[in-house]
Amino acid sequence: MNYKMIGRFIGRILYVEVIFMLPALLISMCEQAWASATGFVVSMVITLFAAIFLSFLCKGYKKKFYAKEGLVCVGISWIVMSLLGCLPFYFSGAIPNYIDALFEIVSGFTTTGATILADVESLSKGILYWRSFSHWLGGMGVLVFLLAISSANEGNSGFTMHLLRAESPGPNVGKLVPQMKKTAGLLYCMYVLLTILNIIFLLIGRMPLFDAVCTAFGTAGTGGFGVRNDSLISYSPYLQNVCTVFMLLFGVNFSCYYLLMIKQFKSVFKDEELRLYLGVVVGSIALITWNLKGFYDTLGETLRHASLQVASIVTTTGFASADFDLWPSFSKAILLFLMVIGACAGSTGGGFKCGRALLMLKSLRRSVQQIVHPQKVQVVRINGHVVDEKIVQNTNAYLAAYVTIVLLSFMAVSLDNLSPMTNFSAVLSCFNNIGPGLEAVGPVCNFSMYSPFSKLVLIMDMLAGRLEIFPILIFFSRTTWKHR
Amino acid sequence: MNYKMIGRFIGRILYVEVIFMLPALLISMCEQAWASATGFVVSMVITLFAAIFLSFLCKGYKKKFYAKEGLVCVGISWIVMSLLGCLPFYFSGAIPNYIDALFEIVSGFTTTGATILADVESLSKGILYWRSFSHWLGGMGVLVFLLAISSANEGNSGFTMHLLRAESPGPNVGKLVPQMKKTAGLLYCMYVLLTILNIIFLLIGRMPLFDAVCTAFGTAGTGGFGVRNDSLISYSPYLQNVCTVFMLLFGVNFSCYYLLMIKQFKSVFKDEELRLYLGVVVGSIALITWNLKGFYDTLGETLRHASLQVASIVTTTGFASADFDLWPSFSKAILLFLMVIGACAGSTGGGFKCGRALLMLKSLRRSVQQIVHPQKVQVVRINGHVVDEKIVQNTNAYLAAYVTIVLLSFMAVSLDNLSPMTNFSAVLSCFNNIGPGLEAVGPVCNFSMYSPFSKLVLIMDMLAGRLEIFPILIFFSRTTWKHR
Repeated sequence: MNYKMIGRFIGRILYVEVIFMLPALLISMCEQAWASATGFVVSMVITLFAAIFLSFLCKGYKKKFYAKEGLVCVGISWIVMSLLGCLPFYFSGAIPNYIDALFEIVSGFTTTGATILADVESLSKGILYWRSFSHWLGGMGVLVFLLAISSANEGNSGFTMHLLRAESPGPNVGKLVPQMKKTAGLLYCMYVLLTILNIIFLLIGRMPLFDAVCTAFGTAGTGGFGVRNDSLISYSPYLQNVCTVFMLLFGVNFSCYYLLMIKQFKSVFKDEELRLYLGVVVGSIALITWNLKGFYDTLGETLRHASLQVASIVTTTGFASADFDLWPSFSKAILLFLMVIGACAGSTGGGFKCGRALLMLKSLRRSVQQIVHPQKVQVVRINGHVVDEKIVQNTNAYLAAYVTIVLLSFMAVSLDNLSPMTNFSAVLSCFNNIGPGLEAVGPVCNFSMYSPFSKLVLIMDMLAGRLEIFPILIFFSRTTWKHR
Repeated sequence: MNYKMIGRFIGRILYVEVIFMLPALLISMCEQAWASATGFVVSMVITLFAAIFLSFLCKGYKKKFYAKEGLVCVGISWIVMSLLGCLPFYFSGAIPNYIDALFEIVSGFTTTGATILADVESLSKGILYWRSFSHWLGGMGVLVFLLAISSANEGNSGFTMHLLRAESPGPNVGKLVPQMKKTAGLLYCMYVLLTILNIIFLLIGRMPLFDAVCTAFGTAGTGGFGVRNDSLISYSPYLQNVCTVFMLLFGVNFSCYYLLMIKQFKSVFKDEELRLYLGVVVGSIALITWNLKGFYDTLGETLRHASLQVASIVTTTGFASADFDLWPSFSKAILLFLMVIGACAGSTGGGFKCGRALLMLKSLRRSVQQIVHPQKVQVVRINGHVVDEKIVQNTNAYLAAYVTIVLLSFMAVSLDNLSPMTNFSAVLSCFNNIGPGLEAVGPVCNFSMYSPFSKLVLIMDMLAGRLEIFPILIFFSRTTWKHR
């Protein structure tokens, strides 16, 4: 294990984290919220010391770097980043319990959006900004950011490749352009542009600037933290519709946008994952609108709530324009189904991912065909290309890990004597990085009633979900740490 | 598709069904329940006509028979057998609605044990006998029975092999002895012996003979239909313990018993699936007993209920000695986990099967190791033997099909506006052939409040679960019916 290189890398991430805390500190000072400002200063000093210490300790690293080290590096980075990133909540007194603060920041970085706070409106703006910004940073990935800004001569392509693979969501994020550094830069460019566009559209709807920025962060990262206690319920229909559209846009594979940029419209139009994603979205909206007949006054209102909620859950954002826990069972079942499916691979959304579901269904169909025609050699194709058997195998392994983790977490969380559906939806919601669940963790409730143990389980679920299980599995696997 | 051979085979199964209805008719006549007796006579006449018609229609079949035809044959057989097997319920007036009657007999044949009847004690003994006997027949499989009694000169080994493979539960049921006919006979011998032993132990506990026979049928097939409204709640502790022990015994892979018969104790002791199964059972009993502290008066009582319920759910029988829907959430979560896991492959139990879970976890571990050591060729081993990659692939495909079916059924059933946990546990319970679920389908409730549409969905789930998905998938696959 190349500890020195990993340590150095984490040191750099912490420097970035300190820099990113600055705007929050400035906002706190502007509004004269001295408790928050002090919280940020103390946190920045601690983080800075940790960064300096790591950089000092890990001088003279070897250049050789393996895939497993990439995964371990990503796993540790996210854990360390969270352990220090929650300090502002803790030291400012906004969240006096450390486990709670950790839950909140992990929920932020992993773009889950599950909160333990009942009243966010009483928080200072600096804290609110940091909370929402964590979504934006976590959405595209902090390591990807680091790659994008790193100097080109460091281009150890194996290294950057492993990191980008490990941190980006979905099974098929490849290179857009030959160099990984350029790919990372391109991704962040598109991300920034879309976010700015989102802010502009929110401002047009007369949302205050601060709210617009925070809401756009929550949308872009498909996170779901907002600045109001009732999520999006009290915003105007126009603003809700803007959120719906942008949530859906951020759930699309970013390579589709790249293809649009280079004018390959045909490949975007024919992309099977995109078609599945849009099909699921349109189908779910139609079914829920039909199921909600008579629940709201007008068809327009029903359609607005149905589409916002579908967009919010399928992209794993977690905003709410209505208390969907009151909806009929069929609508709730569809939302639970969407929780599992998730957004496109290569987007900022979480969940199992449409691309993986597509691959899984195609591999299932292949198995059926193999029974019917045992002599025929069959391959799995996506967008006309033959998929490598290793990727098919890994997708199946992913499903196995997914089911195992959901079952074990569900049992662990059930030790707190809440209702089974509360616990089940809480696990699904955290593991798929959504935010709200059903019953006692519904959209108008929060996660504060869980015990510290359950919160730790859910924290691990959020991290495992965001990093797509394997970095966390590898981190805890004996083989990884065995000397050979 | 070799329609004639399939038709002929189904004809034979119907003959067997008529013969098996005879004891129920005799019992009805003995107790002078003329409505039941008439019901049986009418049903037998109809079934007999269908059998004669099929045999007549399908004369002169070709001998060639493919794997897919074996699967299709098993699928159709079970559907036809159920469509006619429910007639006694219908014509006797015991269940005046045909869909309900079908639900009840499918629940019987698939050894699910979910019922739509609130009051079984008011049924005639003939009907009760037929209900429980359907478990016994479905447990080991009616086609396996047919193979066991068929004349040896028909030994078209490809044919019998395909059928046995398709109907026996679990991924690894192979031949015990070289000839399939002998294997089938051996399986039924052990099955009959264990059932008789069960009856004797129940009689020692002063259970009336009729109750003992029906309860033993329900236990042997891991079904769960009983003759009392409260399942096993009102029986003595001794009888409850006898049921616990025999449920666990019927959940063991029958090839273990064969190995014991030929004195290969060591291979039984070292069997990894058996170890996992016993580990899960002991672990779950311990955890539930700990979780139920203070719920019952004495430790002995707690232990008795915990072990009966664990045995009942893990073997997918579905008997209840207590209303476990009132237990704390952690215990309920363990029971839900056990619902999914299921019993050993090659037993009469349903569910995902311990053997498959073992294979899945090992293949997952392999995937992790492959990331850590990409150069190393890794194989999956069970009991020291290398597992064929095709079986590993099929197990993963099975999981994919399993998850897909659970999700889709859950959504379909949710159209009836019952609580999400009711619907979710109802689907899990039917698909894994268990019987009771949680909340409105808990152990002291029944499935009668579901709409006919939901009942049909659950019927398909029960069949898909009992036949291990693929026969049903193949039946509905376009490729199967396409001419080449």
